[in-house]
Amino acid sequence: MAVYTNIDENDLTALLADFDLGAAVSCKGIAEGVENSNYLLETERGRFILTLYERRVRTDDLPYFIDLMQWLAERGFPCPIPMADRQGRVLKVVRERPAALVTFLTGVSVQRPGPEHCRQAGEGLARLHLAGQGFPHRRENTLGQHVWAGLFDGAKATADALQPGLTGRITQDLDDLARDWPTGLPAGPIHADLFPDNVFFVGERFSAAIDFYFACDDALAYDLAVCLNAWAFEPDGRYKPDCARAMVEGYEILRPLSMAERSSLTVLARGAAMRFFLTRLIDWTATPPGALVRPKDPLEYAAKLDVFRALPKGVGLV
Amino acid sequence: MAVYTNIDENDLTALLADFDLGAAVSCKGIAEGVENSNYLLETERGRFILTLYERRVRTDDLPYFIDLMQWLAERGFPCPIPMADRQGRVLKVVRERPAALVTFLTGVSVQRPGPEHCRQAGEGLARLHLAGQGFPHRRENTLGQHVWAGLFDGAKATADALQPGLTGRITQDLDDLARDWPTGLPAGPIHADLFPDNVFFVGERFSAAIDFYFACDDALAYDLAVCLNAWAFEPDGRYKPDCARAMVEGYEILRPLSMAERSSLTVLARGAAMRFFLTRLIDWTATPPGALVRPKDPLEYAAKLDVFRALPKGVGLV
Repeated sequence: MAVYTNIDENDLTALLADFDLGAAVSCKGIAEGVENSNYLLETERGRFILTLYERRVRTDDLPYFIDLMQWLAERGFPCPIPMADRQGRVLKVVRERPAALVTFLTGVSVQRPGPEHCRQAGEGLARLHLAGQGFPHRRENTLGQHVWAGLFDGAKATADALQPGLTGRITQDLDDLARDWPTGLPAGPIHADLFPDNVFFVGERFSAAIDFYFACDDALAYDLAVCLNAWAFEPDGRYKPDCARAMVEGYEILRPLSMAERSSLTVLARGAAMRFFLTRLIDWTATPPGALVRPKDPLEYAAKLDVFRALPKGVGLV
Repeated sequence: MAVYTNIDENDLTALLADFDLGAAVSCKGIAEGVENSNYLLETERGRFILTLYERRVRTDDLPYFIDLMQWLAERGFPCPIPMADRQGRVLKVVRERPAALVTFLTGVSVQRPGPEHCRQAGEGLARLHLAGQGFPHRRENTLGQHVWAGLFDGAKATADALQPGLTGRITQDLDDLARDWPTGLPAGPIHADLFPDNVFFVGERFSAAIDFYFACDDALAYDLAVCLNAWAFEPDGRYKPDCARAMVEGYEILRPLSMAERSSLTVLARGAAMRFFLTRLIDWTATPPGALVRPKDPLEYAAKLDVFRALPKGVGLV
């Protein structure tokens, strides 16, 4: 949850003067997203999310994210639509921060997804991948497999302080992943962070995906592997095979996996667990005591890595 | 800003099952209020604020606050209207906390009020006082003058650590206030916390007041004195006499002050500064380092107390 930067009536008036959206009718800071400041802004013409981009989102990457949302929305994928001002500019400046106004989407995210939610989310992810085909811009996955060992080098002390012996287990995982990481899988724009809080439902129907600020180019099946981690485990680390199966089935309604993708899914999921373990581990040490956001527990993902490590050789997660 | 308690789809479904408001269409934790968790909840029938009452709000007091909002709304005052469920109950339980659903109000609060905002806020406060006349319930001001010396006794060490010599100055202020505190002024239900973030405007027109969780019985002019502190000073402590004058003028459009109220206004304002200084001082020490809410700076109110202390004898603030 986060509102790092407070805006006032003068900021709103100055921003809205550039658009044809009328005056502000209400504006609430919302506890959504941990990277940016977000406001639910209602104007005389509609409801929008105003995002002020804070630390960690690199300004150079913003056009990629915004163009991708625009591209997906134009192809019928339900995601926030960036609003252009009268001069056609989407990236604005509010309180000296890059800022953008996107459409507000209705729907409710689920914290405890069941198999039907997972099936819907899987199908939604496939829709996203199909809509993303042909997107002309590229952004490297800066949190991809090639950086994990380097990320871990700087955080080993924290790991052993969190759990005795953790450094040894993670080092072994990193070696396994480096050896087994697949190449040449179908690739394209991926969301890369499609956790339950970034998916909206109306009833049990997938209605929208939000928060494209980790989107990048990578293997499409890796995106599904991220989702398996985020949707098919209990918070205490227990695996929910019915949720995982439903998610893959939902995905394959629209985009059947190739043999290579299917046989890579477990190692991709183990890698996705590593990626979130590592960034949580780093945030765990880097978060100052007075921060507005509580860091997420890296041990949740260490527990998932335990599940992957314990799988008998040749046995897949799904 | 605050969402202390996270709710999920099951909590929403269970809550809304008791009302005739339809299903949840969207739900966002909002960064509003420092005492409670607040959600902007849209259902098929409208928009509401769902509040989960956390620490500091005494459960026994909730019926007073809720009945007062109901009373004021029925008399045309624009404040949140508590929603009763099918059995007529307004106080619900969500995640083991008392909770209430109130109507969502449009409008934007101002962070840098000018004289016209102050005039409007003053008139709005008078509307509130007139609408509150005859309200049958009573709640003592638990942060009134009689408790200040006791509150300060427990926080003297913090005061001198914050600013050398502060304890001596505050002790003198407390003695002056005890000696000069007026009695017998017209009293009734007061808001007691009508800061700019609790007042909404549409354009420059007062549109609503929210957050009645400090409301109590006290001198009506004390409520105006709280507002003078909150609206007529710069954040650095400089006094804005044009804002103060506009606020009193706006108030007197609907409710002219008596001679006794007018001549007490400066000591009441000095007392109001003391009340917020003291609670901020106590929160300053009591807030744990990992808290989601940054404590407000007590020195902002110490600076206001300096202004009052420096007024020549017989010279009023307004």
